[in-house]
Amino acid sequence: MLGLMQDKPLLVSSLLDHAERFHPDQGLVSRTCEGVTVRETYAQLAARVRRLARALVAMGIKPGDRVATMAWNTHRHVELYFAVSGIGAVLHTVNPRLFPEQIDYIINHSKARALFFDITFGESVAALLPTLPMVEEVVAMTDERHMGSMPDDAQCYEDLIAQHEESPYDWPQFDERSASSLCYTSGTTGNPKGVLYSHRSTLLHSMMTCQVDGLQLSSRDTTLLCVPLFHVNAWGMPYASAMCGANLVLPGPNLDGKSLFDLAVEENCTFSLGVPTVWLGFFGHLEGLDPQSVDQLSLKRVMIGGSAAPREIIRKFDEIGILTIQAWGMTETSPVATVCNLLPKHAELSKSEVLDIQTLQGRPVFGVDIRVTDDAGEPLPFDGKTPGDLQVRGPWVASGYYEHDATSLDTEGWFATGDVATIDADGFVRITDRSKDVIKSGGEWISSIDLENAAVSHPAVAEAAVIGIPHDKWQERPLMLVILKKGQTTDREALRQHLSGLVATWWLPEDILFVDDLPHTATGKLQKMILRQQYAPA
Amino acid sequence: MLGLMQDKPLLVSSLLDHAERFHPDQGLVSRTCEGVTVRETYAQLAARVRRLARALVAMGIKPGDRVATMAWNTHRHVELYFAVSGIGAVLHTVNPRLFPEQIDYIINHSKARALFFDITFGESVAALLPTLPMVEEVVAMTDERHMGSMPDDAQCYEDLIAQHEESPYDWPQFDERSASSLCYTSGTTGNPKGVLYSHRSTLLHSMMTCQVDGLQLSSRDTTLLCVPLFHVNAWGMPYASAMCGANLVLPGPNLDGKSLFDLAVEENCTFSLGVPTVWLGFFGHLEGLDPQSVDQLSLKRVMIGGSAAPREIIRKFDEIGILTIQAWGMTETSPVATVCNLLPKHAELSKSEVLDIQTLQGRPVFGVDIRVTDDAGEPLPFDGKTPGDLQVRGPWVASGYYEHDATSLDTEGWFATGDVATIDADGFVRITDRSKDVIKSGGEWISSIDLENAAVSHPAVAEAAVIGIPHDKWQERPLMLVILKKGQTTDREALRQHLSGLVATWWLPEDILFVDDLPHTATGKLQKMILRQQYAPA
Repeated sequence: MLGLMQDKPLLVSSLLDHAERFHPDQGLVSRTCEGVTVRETYAQLAARVRRLARALVAMGIKPGDRVATMAWNTHRHVELYFAVSGIGAVLHTVNPRLFPEQIDYIINHSKARALFFDITFGESVAALLPTLPMVEEVVAMTDERHMGSMPDDAQCYEDLIAQHEESPYDWPQFDERSASSLCYTSGTTGNPKGVLYSHRSTLLHSMMTCQVDGLQLSSRDTTLLCVPLFHVNAWGMPYASAMCGANLVLPGPNLDGKSLFDLAVEENCTFSLGVPTVWLGFFGHLEGLDPQSVDQLSLKRVMIGGSAAPREIIRKFDEIGILTIQAWGMTETSPVATVCNLLPKHAELSKSEVLDIQTLQGRPVFGVDIRVTDDAGEPLPFDGKTPGDLQVRGPWVASGYYEHDATSLDTEGWFATGDVATIDADGFVRITDRSKDVIKSGGEWISSIDLENAAVSHPAVAEAAVIGIPHDKWQERPLMLVILKKGQTTDREALRQHLSGLVATWWLPEDILFVDDLPHTATGKLQKMILRQQYAPA
Repeated sequence: MLGLMQDKPLLVSSLLDHAERFHPDQGLVSRTCEGVTVRETYAQLAARVRRLARALVAMGIKPGDRVATMAWNTHRHVELYFAVSGIGAVLHTVNPRLFPEQIDYIINHSKARALFFDITFGESVAALLPTLPMVEEVVAMTDERHMGSMPDDAQCYEDLIAQHEESPYDWPQFDERSASSLCYTSGTTGNPKGVLYSHRSTLLHSMMTCQVDGLQLSSRDTTLLCVPLFHVNAWGMPYASAMCGANLVLPGPNLDGKSLFDLAVEENCTFSLGVPTVWLGFFGHLEGLDPQSVDQLSLKRVMIGGSAAPREIIRKFDEIGILTIQAWGMTETSPVATVCNLLPKHAELSKSEVLDIQTLQGRPVFGVDIRVTDDAGEPLPFDGKTPGDLQVRGPWVASGYYEHDATSLDTEGWFATGDVATIDADGFVRITDRSKDVIKSGGEWISSIDLENAAVSHPAVAEAAVIGIPHDKWQERPLMLVILKKGQTTDREALRQHLSGLVATWWLPEDILFVDDLPHTATGKLQKMILRQQYAPA
């Protein structure tokens, strides 16, 4: 027997409707690629989104069609978020920092019919277009004055939307499981794979974002958005901000410490989100400032994700009165799966003990279920010390990839994250390694990351990489590769001595080699697969 | 094109699973009808719910079957919430304060197959059973020791669940639009009508409850639940508490000021919810206490709903450091539709100006859309002064009534609430009247409630009722009926003089009559329909 409640689908268009009706004066601040600051209330945003929606329909964009973007965090990119999904098409955000051949692969794979791009990418787009036969419409996200150096075929965004009305738009109503956006994730091997979000997953994820035990986003927030709109929908922030009427400050192409600091001060930002690298740059700028300047910040909390937040960053934020909230997730989890909010019982802890908790990747929010499993796929205890393969499931976790055969789920619907983690009795997750990098020695698992961290804590070590090498008796044993700091020396025995104070004896590397260089991906990740090939026994 | 996200239905069973896995040590405190205090963690709750679920299945309860309860706020009632909905049956909470003939009508109309009741209702149930032919199973929610005076056919709850295992239970997965609970709403006319909630509506409403701009419920809360579990699912609190792992304190049958105060202090409650009447009793108790005793309260916020919160209560709460959050809704809206949270721009207001805002019924949370319309059904402006019929729509608003022909929605899906309200530019709602009571005079609307409030502000007036009487020229004009306080006197002219300082001249009543008595419903509401008949022109 079905209930008798209204069958209203959860659609992205309803977010903007709500913001326009009930938060008309809140909205966006956008530092554009043209170097100006644009202020746009939700009422103005909604009006421009309606013009854009009409322009897309006039172009012939149909429900389900992909519309690609190569763009920074600006108001026009947010307009595309709402207009493309609003008419039932799929917003395909492309990471413009990828290699041209990857961008080429991704746009061709998605069969995007239109490509919107920021003027900073005019040249790249001109170079790409000859190998993008399926892209019919190319639009430079700018005004007429800045069209000079754009590709010949490109239309002008502002001209395009000026041709259409801003009058009320009858947003189509459709199945909430329809695709709303598409984001490709690039692993270290194989071609990038597309995660296809639905309107339902997007809205449920937004509802979580506005929860106290989620990211605490509310109408009282002004958020400095340091995570790019081209990466996992900027952690869902455009949607969640419209849901609760929070102000959204978009820094455009400039993500250096000074630009972010100035913007945070000028716009009285209360919240921000970014990867650790962004905050390293931020603190780099803060170091040169006097305390009064730092005091101008209104920031109350900062969310860190993407990779583990260094304890030192969390401590530094605490020192200037800003709460760090670490979170974990991935492109396949929309992305927020766990959030490191403190529990009531942590109220009595010392600063240092609180920091211990804050360096964890957090606990699952409602909607996400998690577990760790052993090699045989059996669930492991929540004991905070037994590492296992981290699996997740829930309504905003991917069930597969766009036009890709690989099934990502097991028979019970668990998605294998590829991370190795421990989970404690309260559900706090600690990511200890990547599944393919963990060293399986005598039935136990050794974290390559923990060993690397122990090595770089030695004053002479600049960088370290640990890989598993096959071993007759133990299955695998760790091999450590070390780059020394310029002008520093140490030897195997001294380093071994240093490590033995930090990790269990049976974790100590089988061998330590000093090298001049280590291979990295374009985004700075260690390419351990290459190392494993290089150091494989003959 | 559908997205590629997991198709996980939003089910009530997933709430308890989450609480057990990630908040095992938080849970319930229950003052039972037997006079003892029971503590039950979410882990223990989940274990007992699994026993109960097996007992229900063994009884022959099938998906869709109704299971009725007549019970207070205790842990066993919460167990029924999760077990009944968990197995796919429908929890039908019956208001035990209704007249026996209403209870009889409701249970027969729902065709409940089982009836669970608290021992305080043993006698009423014994009297009801002969006219409830469809009820096959009757269970007293107590242990063997208290079964003495229970009806002969009644089984014992504790015996019943002791016969079943607490081992893992494979909760059925089904369409999230399936019915989860049923609550009848009794108007002033006609038979009660059943609102049939779905798993989906219940979970979406819970997600809103945990939002900062919702009720701000979090794992750091311990909630004193002063709204009954038999009324609109206690405003959804059992579900939302499990969602975020908040502690829930259940006061059982004793809702007097002293019992609630003592419980709030003993359990360090941080949040509470109740109708204004409950808080009048609460402050009645506080008046006799010294300030140190009052200081023992850990309450930080109190939600008031059900009827408009008097300004004086909000002020009194503020005086002792407790924030009042007013909300508006009804059985048909699950119930929360609008919540009175302050906006950033209110930060600079004076106490008295803040109080002005807090006496409003709040703004719509995301998920609920609202509007006011005129007699012709045309939308009226959000100007804070034009009253109209308040309409709502959204995924936790009723689309109809259980086994009832009346359609409650118009063609665009708007539900007519039967309230008259103004909405201001920020979306703040002020309920000014009931649609059937508002006086339509010369094309404008006069609020009967505002006139009554103006009248009772006169020192000699005990109670006032204002009704519309037909008028040749103006369509309707107000007639005021007044009961004077004992020993007090005034006359028509003096009262008219008093009113003219408080309302517009054209609102002044056509006539004022002094009466000895006014008709009320069982729950204390004025029966204006009777007055309209009584004072209708011949």
